[in-house]
Amino acid sequence: MAALVEDYLAAREETFLVQLMEWLRVPSISTDSEHAGDVRAAADWLVTHLRDLGLSANLVETAGHPAVLGELLQAGPDAPTVLIYGHYDVQPAALAEGWSREPFDPWVVNDRLYGRGTTDDKGQVFMHVKALEALLELEGQLPVNVRLLIEGEEEIGSPSFARLFEEHADRLAADVVLISDSPFLEMGVPAIYGSTRGLVGLEVEVTGPPTDLHSGVFGGAVLNPANVLARMLAHLHDDDGRISVPDLYGRVIEGELTAEGSGLRATEAGQLWDWLVTAAGDAVGGETNTTVQERLWHRPALDVHGIEAGYTGAGFKAIVPRSARATLSCRLTANQDPDEIGRAIGNHLLTTAPEGVTVHVRTLSQCSPWRADMSHAAYSKVAAALQAAFGAAPIVAGGGGSIGVLPILQQQLAAPIVLAGFGSPGENAHGPDEWLSLDHFRRGIQSLVEILRSLATVDVQRSF
Amino acid sequence: MAALVEDYLAAREETFLVQLMEWLRVPSISTDSEHAGDVRAAADWLVTHLRDLGLSANLVETAGHPAVLGELLQAGPDAPTVLIYGHYDVQPAALAEGWSREPFDPWVVNDRLYGRGTTDDKGQVFMHVKALEALLELEGQLPVNVRLLIEGEEEIGSPSFARLFEEHADRLAADVVLISDSPFLEMGVPAIYGSTRGLVGLEVEVTGPPTDLHSGVFGGAVLNPANVLARMLAHLHDDDGRISVPDLYGRVIEGELTAEGSGLRATEAGQLWDWLVTAAGDAVGGETNTTVQERLWHRPALDVHGIEAGYTGAGFKAIVPRSARATLSCRLTANQDPDEIGRAIGNHLLTTAPEGVTVHVRTLSQCSPWRADMSHAAYSKVAAALQAAFGAAPIVAGGGGSIGVLPILQQQLAAPIVLAGFGSPGENAHGPDEWLSLDHFRRGIQSLVEILRSLATVDVQRSF
Repeated sequence: MAALVEDYLAAREETFLVQLMEWLRVPSISTDSEHAGDVRAAADWLVTHLRDLGLSANLVETAGHPAVLGELLQAGPDAPTVLIYGHYDVQPAALAEGWSREPFDPWVVNDRLYGRGTTDDKGQVFMHVKALEALLELEGQLPVNVRLLIEGEEEIGSPSFARLFEEHADRLAADVVLISDSPFLEMGVPAIYGSTRGLVGLEVEVTGPPTDLHSGVFGGAVLNPANVLARMLAHLHDDDGRISVPDLYGRVIEGELTAEGSGLRATEAGQLWDWLVTAAGDAVGGETNTTVQERLWHRPALDVHGIEAGYTGAGFKAIVPRSARATLSCRLTANQDPDEIGRAIGNHLLTTAPEGVTVHVRTLSQCSPWRADMSHAAYSKVAAALQAAFGAAPIVAGGGGSIGVLPILQQQLAAPIVLAGFGSPGENAHGPDEWLSLDHFRRGIQSLVEILRSLATVDVQRSF
Repeated sequence: MAALVEDYLAAREETFLVQLMEWLRVPSISTDSEHAGDVRAAADWLVTHLRDLGLSANLVETAGHPAVLGELLQAGPDAPTVLIYGHYDVQPAALAEGWSREPFDPWVVNDRLYGRGTTDDKGQVFMHVKALEALLELEGQLPVNVRLLIEGEEEIGSPSFARLFEEHADRLAADVVLISDSPFLEMGVPAIYGSTRGLVGLEVEVTGPPTDLHSGVFGGAVLNPANVLARMLAHLHDDDGRISVPDLYGRVIEGELTAEGSGLRATEAGQLWDWLVTAAGDAVGGETNTTVQERLWHRPALDVHGIEAGYTGAGFKAIVPRSARATLSCRLTANQDPDEIGRAIGNHLLTTAPEGVTVHVRTLSQCSPWRADMSHAAYSKVAAALQAAFGAAPIVAGGGGSIGVLPILQQQLAAPIVLAGFGSPGENAHGPDEWLSLDHFRRGIQSLVEILRSLATVDVQRSF
């Protein structure tokens, strides 16, 4: 059967690439209002494509860009329902930003498909669609009920997602959620992401004297907001790189995520160090007495993103600046609550400021962390299917970044969420010359066929 | 005799103001190369004016704007020689910057003369010239030998001064130096400045990863240059506001400057607090267990002038920035050496940086501190003359800022330098609506006449 699928896919690969390239040529850049028409055109393309396969599909309007909802519920009420989530919008891209060729005119070199959206996320969404097509062509039906929710606002933080999900809850209920929007950590070795970190982003502004003052005339007798802000930021960590904010670690689960019994291997530290050093050079660092997996995925991280104080032009201006401002965020893990942690950090900043300056702390951004319960059978089934297709036991990885839709999906559905993407290390998802491995593409579609088959036997939580 | 001078000056006040206003109308802005011709014209005006009084005077060329040298050495070899230093260049000024009227078209309101250069420093230089004129008119000669060095580059940091002084040392030797380029701390109460602080200005740049990194993907496992820089800057002070750099206080003289036996009063702390609070609002601060005089004048002060790190636009960008940069300076007192202190601070910054980041420290600016030996008879003589004219015992003040020519004058001449200016608190020397008190103007010229007379009896160090 696997061989049958493999033959089927091999025979159609050229057609598939022609189709995908057509979709990739639509510059569905969600951040840029000038491309709103392109975003809609890319959504329309998908609706048409799904309908051609025999699924029902339509655009769902939001306050921003529309989402695509599709479904085929022919497996019957006793079969589980799988919800496939992804996004068809892409990051901006321009030749001038370092691309070798036009980013919206995809090309193939060395068994890689290059172009904006190849891996993030049109290419990976397309793989799911082709897995459905293969099953329908080869077997005349799907082994599970399938729903698709492919949104057009992921690259701008999914602002309409929670509302969309509430309004269309009846069309989105599912027993398992499948998401392919993540990279392998090593070529050919699949990775399932068992967690993502949350986020609380803050702005802190310190104001001192009513105007900039001459540092000769007043220096030494006036609280300098730039010095004060530096001290406040410094007080956020202790000498071991641990965050000094009281109660911050209360809800953090110590250690790495385990996935025993799922067939998933833990990530090897060495592998991850290599990957980290490639990006960070000598500047690797972090909390002492923690593993690299913990630092990247399972520990909170408090980073300053920007500081602006006083005179920053050429040379030097001898002032005590009136004010100083920083933006920072804390990545959150396990059960940490963005609101609670934001308040704790804000209070700590206020506590460490001297009397005499005014401190304003403002919340800029919030996102809850997410952590899978990997004891659910869906994980071991997906792992086995991936292992069969790739010939390597998948690893359990973590996501250091924040994916806003996961906590919403988790809250709305009592279903396991399986993050199994087919990207590659160094894929340049948001940079120039973004690419998708065609080896991952082929074997990925094959594994998705197997995944849908194997998920036919997971428990049905409820009937839809 | 004092009454005679007073009558003489009263009779000529209108003429004096017409003359001064003519000089003030020449926009001798040294920072702006477009005004180079105006700068020279203002110098020419002064040369002509001095020659009209019977002094010899000429322009002295420098690499930048010319200086004016003048002299009248008729008091004979047994009489002391007084060098009057000042500057004829001014800060930029434009109506759009908040002036009530055209800054280079001076006007009188409420017994104040308004306009750019009225107090800083053309007006005060002019007072010296008018004191010489009064003495010549009333007595036919000067009681001391007089030299004038009025430069055209003070507002750009006197870059040509050291060289100029060396090249013309024979024409600049003196037993006493008089400088009027400073304000009273209270209206009608003269202030002699007994010290100025030096300066070493530094730039520090911290570089971490090769590029900005995604704070989700990498945060917690990478040294963040913005956080690192904040910690380094925070480590420059202890919790008592004292500078933590080792050996920094080694050459600092503890306590305030004393001027016992000179007839000068110490500044009252209350007076100074009021002045400070007016400028700094609630943000008064500084090293614990020090007086306000010490903080402002006699203790080093380490201020950050600017910080630039990462993303500082609207909102928020979740990055670990590649680098972070700050400019800072340390004001120096007593015997502190800019080079030595700059190295100490640079080393401390390097010491407090973690391994894994690159730190570059660069010197931007240096100026030595200056401190008078107020036991010299010149101080008590000037103090007595000021007291006679103003009816108030002068105070000994400090200068928190840095005046680059003072250490040079001190090094070149074995002569006391008396900083006795006639400006006012709130005079807006570098701001809009700069003004000179006409009460200070009148009584100031009168006191300068008395000062020159009384200096006739100071010891002559050497004959010229």
